[in-house]
Amino acid sequence: MSEIKVGVIGCGYWGPNLIRNFSCCPLTQLVAVCDRDQKRLDSIGGKYAGVKLCSALDDLLELELDAVAIATPVSTHFDLASQCLKAGFHVLVEKPLAASVEEATQLVDLADTAGRILMVDHTYLYGNPVRRIREIIESGDLGDLYYIDSVRINLGLFQHDINVIWDLAPHDLSIVDYVLGWQARSVSAWGCAHGNPDVENVAYMNLDYGERMLANVHVNWLSPVKLRQMIFAGSRKSLVFNDLNPTEPIKVYDRGVEFSNADEQRRKLQVGYRTGDVWSPHIEPREALQTMVTHFAECILENRPPITDANQGLRIVKYLEAATRSIRAQGGRIVLDYGLHHDGIYNGHSNGKRQLLANRA
Amino acid sequence: MSEIKVGVIGCGYWGPNLIRNFSCCPLTQLVAVCDRDQKRLDSIGGKYAGVKLCSALDDLLELELDAVAIATPVSTHFDLASQCLKAGFHVLVEKPLAASVEEATQLVDLADTAGRILMVDHTYLYGNPVRRIREIIESGDLGDLYYIDSVRINLGLFQHDINVIWDLAPHDLSIVDYVLGWQARSVSAWGCAHGNPDVENVAYMNLDYGERMLANVHVNWLSPVKLRQMIFAGSRKSLVFNDLNPTEPIKVYDRGVEFSNADEQRRKLQVGYRTGDVWSPHIEPREALQTMVTHFAECILENRPPITDANQGLRIVKYLEAATRSIRAQGGRIVLDYGLHHDGIYNGHSNGKRQLLANRA
Amino acid sequence: MSEIKVGVIGCGYWGPNLIRNFSCCPLTQLVAVCDRDQKRLDSIGGKYAGVKLCSALDDLLELELDAVAIATPVSTHFDLASQCLKAGFHVLVEKPLAASVEEATQLVDLADTAGRILMVDHTYLYGNPVRRIREIIESGDLGDLYYIDSVRINLGLFQHDINVIWDLAPHDLSIVDYVLGWQARSVSAWGCAHGNPDVENVAYMNLDYGERMLANVHVNWLSPVKLRQMIFAGSRKSLVFNDLNPTEPIKVYDRGVEFSNADEQRRKLQVGYRTGDVWSPHIEPREALQTMVTHFAECILENRPPITDANQGLRIVKYLEAATRSIRAQGGRIVLDYGLHHDGIYNGHSNGKRQLLANRA
Amino acid sequence: MSEIKVGVIGCGYWGPNLIRNFSCCPLTQLVAVCDRDQKRLDSIGGKYAGVKLCSALDDLLELELDAVAIATPVSTHFDLASQCLKAGFHVLVEKPLAASVEEATQLVDLADTAGRILMVDHTYLYGNPVRRIREIIESGDLGDLYYIDSVRINLGLFQHDINVIWDLAPHDLSIVDYVLGWQARSVSAWGCAHGNPDVENVAYMNLDYGERMLANVHVNWLSPVKLRQMIFAGSRKSLVFNDLNPTEPIKVYDRGVEFSNADEQRRKLQVGYRTGDVWSPHIEPREALQTMVTHFAECILENRPPITDANQGLRIVKYLEAATRSIRAQGGRIVLDYGLHHDGIYNGHSNGKRQLLANRA
Repeated sequence: MSEIKVGVIGCGYWGPNLIRNFSCCPLTQLVAVCDRDQKRLDSIGGKYAGVKLCSALDDLLELELDAVAIATPVSTHFDLASQCLKAGFHVLVEKPLAASVEEATQLVDLADTAGRILMVDHTYLYGNPVRRIREIIESGDLGDLYYIDSVRINLGLFQHDINVIWDLAPHDLSIVDYVLGWQARSVSAWGCAHGNPDVENVAYMNLDYGERMLANVHVNWLSPVKLRQMIFAGSRKSLVFNDLNPTEPIKVYDRGVEFSNADEQRRKLQVGYRTGDVWSPHIEPREALQTMVTHFAECILENRPPITDANQGLRIVKYLEAATRSIRAQGGRIVLDYGLHHDGIYNGHSNGKRQLLANRA
Repeated sequence: MSEIKVGVIGCGYWGPNLIRNFSCCPLTQLVAVCDRDQKRLDSIGGKYAGVKLCSALDDLLELELDAVAIATPVSTHFDLASQCLKAGFHVLVEKPLAASVEEATQLVDLADTAGRILMVDHTYLYGNPVRRIREIIESGDLGDLYYIDSVRINLGLFQHDINVIWDLAPHDLSIVDYVLGWQARSVSAWGCAHGNPDVENVAYMNLDYGERMLANVHVNWLSPVKLRQMIFAGSRKSLVFNDLNPTEPIKVYDRGVEFSNADEQRRKLQVGYRTGDVWSPHIEPREALQTMVTHFAECILENRPPITDANQGLRIVKYLEAATRSIRAQGGRIVLDYGLHHDGIYNGHSNGKRQLLANRA
Repeated sequence: MSEIKVGVIGCGYWGPNLIRNFSCCPLTQLVAVCDRDQKRLDSIGGKYAGVKLCSALDDLLELELDAVAIATPVSTHFDLASQCLKAGFHVLVEKPLAASVEEATQLVDLADTAGRILMVDHTYLYGNPVRRIREIIESGDLGDLYYIDSVRINLGLFQHDINVIWDLAPHDLSIVDYVLGWQARSVSAWGCAHGNPDVENVAYMNLDYGERMLANVHVNWLSPVKLRQMIFAGSRKSLVFNDLNPTEPIKVYDRGVEFSNADEQRRKLQVGYRTGDVWSPHIEPREALQTMVTHFAECILENRPPITDANQGLRIVKYLEAATRSIRAQGGRIVLDYGLHHDGIYNGHSNGKRQLLANRA
Repeated sequence: MSEIKVGVIGCGYWGPNLIRNFSCCPLTQLVAVCDRDQKRLDSIGGKYAGVKLCSALDDLLELELDAVAIATPVSTHFDLASQCLKAGFHVLVEKPLAASVEEATQLVDLADTAGRILMVDHTYLYGNPVRRIREIIESGDLGDLYYIDSVRINLGLFQHDINVIWDLAPHDLSIVDYVLGWQARSVSAWGCAHGNPDVENVAYMNLDYGERMLANVHVNWLSPVKLRQMIFAGSRKSLVFNDLNPTEPIKVYDRGVEFSNADEQRRKLQVGYRTGDVWSPHIEPREALQTMVTHFAECILENRPPITDANQGLRIVKYLEAATRSIRAQGGRIVLDYGLHHDGIYNGHSNGKRQLLANRA
């Protein structure tokens, strides 16, 4: 089978991770890297013999490539991805897909028109813990989901051009999107900036998914302690994902409450508490990025849409944009627009939930 | 010194704790208990010889008492406290002070007119950990506070008449009020009800204290795991209070970021990260309730206002009421009214912060 | 059904716990307490109306009692228990049973002759976690046991008359005895005294149970951290009991190694590693002491031997005495003598293991 | 400054780590690697351009090298190190130095005669946590040391030629040797083999350092949980090193007991308990192996003995050999012979402790 010839744009913080994974993936061949900074290029060149080093995008665009991966600041995603798609390349973009819904929507259209794959690197969805979480939720073991609470806080790294929501929340939001399979109806957010007044470094997001299901996300660059914890509370069982626990990242709690309306009077609702065993499934360690890179190659070879396709990228950008608007509006709730002609799967009606899950199963 | 003669109304969940502490406090004498449920009364009578058992409030009001403690459902606080104050008793009320700002305001006035002490049982403020946290914050070791994040979640106990905010958040809010010493300007909240549709069991509150200081509170009756954690992030150091860690409840992290505006361009703000030692001060274990009961007696004997006076009780109720209104308004921010004639200390202007702290020191 | 009339000797550190539990157990009636210290007696008298207070043993011995519980220093156990048995009472003794094998053996004989129950308060065996551990081990889920490692360390309380092994190790040793069902063949121990040179405050014990099964116990009064952890490593699964984890005290790890002798050459033994799920069974909280006291009463009423009978008490004392001898002999291994005429159940042959387990199941 | 030309023998489990560090250390030049396995050689060759690949030792010995690092099975250390020293190279050997005291002693002599540096890779001593621990102990903050307790347990990796003590205990023993600065007088050990009957996979070691100071080491390949914890208990404070806690590896507890002999009667020794703050010094993360490799180069360039010189290697091997003998002797205590002509620093007298520490400070 022929290998996918790949070029990587951006050799800063994340780019080298992509480069390393493309270079050792059997389905891909790392052909070129591109960066304006000559030092970075040289550093990559010293490690990967035979890779073309391009200091200008045009040099890269002229190469015989199948695909390009873009690991540059968010503000450049739209321009770079557009040019690569127009040049006929399949494109992988770092999260978030673009800097606005407007840009993300255009990219979705552009990829559609070009007949090329446009994939977003929502890395967590390629890790074994999140895949297992989705399996458990789809199996129905947790019952109906009541809420998801996600905390992703630590000290640094402050970004200059995007706030903490655009930086960190794509992780939480893409995980929720993936395991849930349907969309939020509205978003509200709070935030505060302590350095650059335009760049919030502490923020809370709230997503209303209908059917009494809400998701809450706390992202923070200014926490003395590092936490990466998600609670998925269900009517039957609940699951906690602690990404910092290397030996037991997932715990399933056979605990919950049971509401019974035996009494006619609504106020006399009976609540029964259940406490049972805790179970931590074994999760085989594997680098998510390797799985991601392989999936990208497979989708190109087999001409099928990736799990983290541009539509998901667009959905996440919608949440990010709505959240930032809500922060500026003092937490006012932003209702999301569901003119989703790009996305046949999601209908945005909360009563579509059961069918969606049924379809996936 | 003469002892304070005390009667306790309500022998349900919390009442017995008050009864036990009043009965062994050297400054108080437990004279009577009152409950409509004869079984509960008998149970108390069996343990505390010589205590009068009243099944009707009127019986209690006719006794020669100095003070009454009220441990009944929130909806009854106003009526019971009013009658006790009018009868000339000093009054201790369980948190929250009352079921509405209207009621709480009237109680503040009533106590003022009657010249009696009206105290709220914000228990945490009498525990050694919170007292130590206030000392550390007042010492200036943390620098300016950036945010407070409080998580108080566990499974149960669902209340029938009040939502999770009214039930649990008085703890977080009274702690923040106590260590901060100035008031929030506005409140926003999100919540969801999974049992009784009128009673939210998962909720998030956000309080804007001005000066880029926000407080966030997550309260939850439906969590598979129990967490009681507060982060106080400062410009110099940060403090984490983990109420479930019996040996190291408080940790002070010599960590933070430094913002420097060396560059003229604001967007080029430099951020420096500092990572240093962690210090956990030894906290002498002591039952907070015993300290609280003693403080109540001392305030009566010395005719001085308690730490958790009715004004604090009113401030907390304002936040609770605003939060519930915000939830019903889809998270819309509720600006608080500062017609604070009852509270000479607090001026509600965010720029009053430094003076307040200066006064306290 | 008639209640068991009980007297308690010793109102020091542990006695009040026994008194409280006997007083609220439906099968027992607390009739009298005995202590030389009048203050202690008065304190008990103030709390338990109608209980006879004896400052001399003779006063107690003259009462119409069914049973006596002894919670005094170890050095007095033999004398007190002997007198009580001779007076015709059933006897419960705090751990360890006696101060020497000689004394313990005589007590076993004495109880036998008198036809009275002599039970030792090995409290842990009446707690739900240890009972669940025994069930899991007996079910065969862990496979063959490879070793047990027990750590029981904290700061204080230094004893004056017995070393840390006599003070703490009865807990570990009685648990091992209970879940294993067969006896150690030999004991070795190390220890060190930092205060009173005759009283070791740090010690390690090693018990050889034959069949490649060893138990190791670390007991320590001089540790900055408190640990209460036991590992039960099996050929199939392993179990860890963390007595300080209130929510998940027991964890069963589906992990282990598999040895295969496929190759003829012994040195080429293949080792396969298995890593699987972790499971934490729900343990219903209940006070072990209440179960213990009830069991004592039931054994008297139904004339059957208790789980923690004098024979177990004697076995534990044998280990304690051997360990202290070994410490004095620089860790030299002490082979235990199995002239076990008092104990028909245990045969001391390591090959008796399977039958024992089979009989129990 | 000229670089040290280095060859590495052994490209199995650990060798590649040495190769990577030598290749990026500014003071060293990786010239050649040697392994009998051609695949391994090729793999290294593919990553490090220009490095000579030797499949036979003789090829390596003929190269112009300054130093050789040996990362092969323990049984080959003596033979390989001897040949390299005789060839005039400085030598770095993986831990433990050799397979017996006899071999280790000969290597010490050989290096002495050849005037070459012989260093052992006791990696932990080059890590920042252990260096900080030694500083704290030398500062006297802990007071006199009472005991060290070290637990190093996990599942795997079973070795075929050496037992768990030879595999893991060099870590613990070299740390104790380094922070303490004087030697144990005797060793006792227990162990058990569950696979290959000659290779213990669970073991406990006890070292008597005189002056009421003992060290205990638990090493284990068959534990369901991974632990890496060392307690250093002192008369004033105590320190706990948890190597698996990435954020707070070291905690200093201001806790302890005070023994006072106020009473004449020795048995009435008073014990006072002190409980104070906990302090966790910030430890800068850095790869210990990089520091180790740099130290090796510096010692060669400056002709000075390394911290982990062959004498330390010999001391550790003495403990290992004594421990294995003790296991075979049922835990019998092995007194160590102190004919320490190779080691002028250590005198082996326990009363030399204070001077030694004084000298170092």
